[in-house]
Amino acid sequence: MKVNGKSYRTIWINEQGELNVINQLRLPHAFEVSTLSNVDQVCEAISNMIVRGAGLIGATAAYGLWLASTQAPTDSIDSFNAYIQNQASRLQATRPTASNLAFAIKRQLKQLEKGITIAEKITLAKAGAQEIADEDAHFCRQIGQHGLDLIQEITISKPGKIVNILTHCNAGWLAFVDYGSALSPIYAAHDAGIPVHVWVDETRPRNQGASLTAWELACHGVSHSLIADNVGGHLMQHGMVDIIFTGADRVTRNGDVANKIGTYLKALAAKDNGVPFYIAFPSSTIDFSLNNGLTQIPIEERSEEEVRIISGKLSNGEIASVQICPDNTGARNWGFDVTPARLITGLVCERGICPATESALLELFPEQTA
Amino acid sequence: MKVNGKSYRTIWINEQGELNVINQLRLPHAFEVSTLSNVDQVCEAISNMIVRGAGLIGATAAYGLWLASTQAPTDSIDSFNAYIQNQASRLQATRPTASNLAFAIKRQLKQLEKGITIAEKITLAKAGAQEIADEDAHFCRQIGQHGLDLIQEITISKPGKIVNILTHCNAGWLAFVDYGSALSPIYAAHDAGIPVHVWVDETRPRNQGASLTAWELACHGVSHSLIADNVGGHLMQHGMVDIIFTGADRVTRNGDVANKIGTYLKALAAKDNGVPFYIAFPSSTIDFSLNNGLTQIPIEERSEEEVRIISGKLSNGEIASVQICPDNTGARNWGFDVTPARLITGLVCERGICPATESALLELFPEQTA
Repeated sequence: MKVNGKSYRTIWINEQGELNVINQLRLPHAFEVSTLSNVDQVCEAISNMIVRGAGLIGATAAYGLWLASTQAPTDSIDSFNAYIQNQASRLQATRPTASNLAFAIKRQLKQLEKGITIAEKITLAKAGAQEIADEDAHFCRQIGQHGLDLIQEITISKPGKIVNILTHCNAGWLAFVDYGSALSPIYAAHDAGIPVHVWVDETRPRNQGASLTAWELACHGVSHSLIADNVGGHLMQHGMVDIIFTGADRVTRNGDVANKIGTYLKALAAKDNGVPFYIAFPSSTIDFSLNNGLTQIPIEERSEEEVRIISGKLSNGEIASVQICPDNTGARNWGFDVTPARLITGLVCERGICPATESALLELFPEQTA
Repeated sequence: MKVNGKSYRTIWINEQGELNVINQLRLPHAFEVSTLSNVDQVCEAISNMIVRGAGLIGATAAYGLWLASTQAPTDSIDSFNAYIQNQASRLQATRPTASNLAFAIKRQLKQLEKGITIAEKITLAKAGAQEIADEDAHFCRQIGQHGLDLIQEITISKPGKIVNILTHCNAGWLAFVDYGSALSPIYAAHDAGIPVHVWVDETRPRNQGASLTAWELACHGVSHSLIADNVGGHLMQHGMVDIIFTGADRVTRNGDVANKIGTYLKALAAKDNGVPFYIAFPSSTIDFSLNNGLTQIPIEERSEEEVRIISGKLSNGEIASVQICPDNTGARNWGFDVTPARLITGLVCERGICPATESALLELFPEQTA
């Protein structure tokens, strides 16, 4: 997608053959490209959230294994392989709950097995990482095309009028390699000339909406307004939301969805007001081994400091953090909640759109029927 | 209620006969008492939110008219009366939508009419203000006693276990003269030795939960945890909320409630999870002339800067404001939403508890049947 009129992915190999990423810790107040030269730097970039988001973490880890292969000992194939296994474990440990991370690492390890010589393995590792990144971008683009159909249906019902779309957190191109999941249909609609306006939930406590979604929509020229997380219900009561798209961190076989904390509240308001509520994700997000999101998906609890302290830009341009509560106030900070399938109008993935039910998901993914 | 072990109201006449208030702009990072010496300072204190909250605004305006009476011209009763009318209009204009403000000013003007001489009027103005403040505190205390019954019922169903209560925004003693509305049952339960724990919604964008509710609960020694506004639904899904109390800005004849933006989302989650959802308020909050909250209560839209910029304490102890979104991101900021009566378990006011229906409200307030 575009930044200052130039097309970017979130991760790429530059002309010098180095791995570049957008430093998401500096957004939205500065646009900075970081170079990751070795697997140590890749581990650090994932764990300290220079890169974040389901698809992007996976792609970054895949490139990390390529960098690892170029640094591995070359005295014997065994010591090369042992080094790679070791680095794969380190990469996996950077964000233990990210499902795309495990997916990408597993796939890369299989890819390296195809090579006989070390030189072959290095070539395969690079090609494998590119393939994972390309596939992520391709799947996200397909999600956008499927979601575009839904937005086009709305424009037919209110021709010439702005389509108002609400989103929660950041499931945009910054969370993937390109296009994004929840935002991909919005970019597709915008690029197709449909007048869209996005309600951007700020998404406390980490404010991914205010900092990342607002930034990427602005970069691509999509009209949007930042709102507090409390506002969406009021908007829906007053007919000011036509459709909702959010991303997903994990989807169960029966269509329950774990996503950023607060998603469930918006789904309830959507149901109460008849607003279509869609979840968009690449299929690697589906966990076909689970059939009850509420009881089976573990919900990560994070540091209370994310709630007590907010970071932003001072009027002099410096970045600073302020504490919003009394010194002795403790906080609790669950990162995700589960939206039950019964509240979801439909699931949008690279293969198409389906109701949030096991039978519908298995129709799209018949290979999972077994 | 208590601050550093000493009992306070939010407004009082001190031993020197001066009007004192707690400066709520400095909370939670500093506890400061301000003296308001004349009606100009009272107007300023209300409009710049040194004092805020339904009950407290009313009481402050009532004291403001007393101060005005001491400053009024004494050359003739007509010029005295004209001055008082003029100051009443100024006070009314400080927060035009606050219903308790209009209520208190109207009542004080009637009170002054009872006096014949200027000296009598001044005495009556002071007594009237004290009466309004005392009544506010008394009604809030009664709300607490009624709400305490609900909490006691819960303790019977889970003896010896902590009762978890969720609240949104600040409807505590800081918003009234003493005790508060939504927090009054919690203080009553705490003082009765019932182990309670409060989930404090931070209440973006102005963070009244994080700054005021957390502060006053801590001052009085009530166990609590700050949470992002997004979290309540997850807690209710997992049985971690036993009951919800919020305040109200306006209640319609049929039981719809306008309250701080985001209240509606919590009411939806309560309904979905069978959690009792109560609204607590003194009866001056009821607008018997309205019978549909969603269509008849105007919802104030406030400055976008309240969303874009957050104030708090830097690590060096200084107070500062940080911008959380890109420079060019616009925001929208509705202050309230309406929770339909169908989502409310019950209304708690000074006369008792009743279902959120017209017939039940009229049973408590038969004088409104006409």
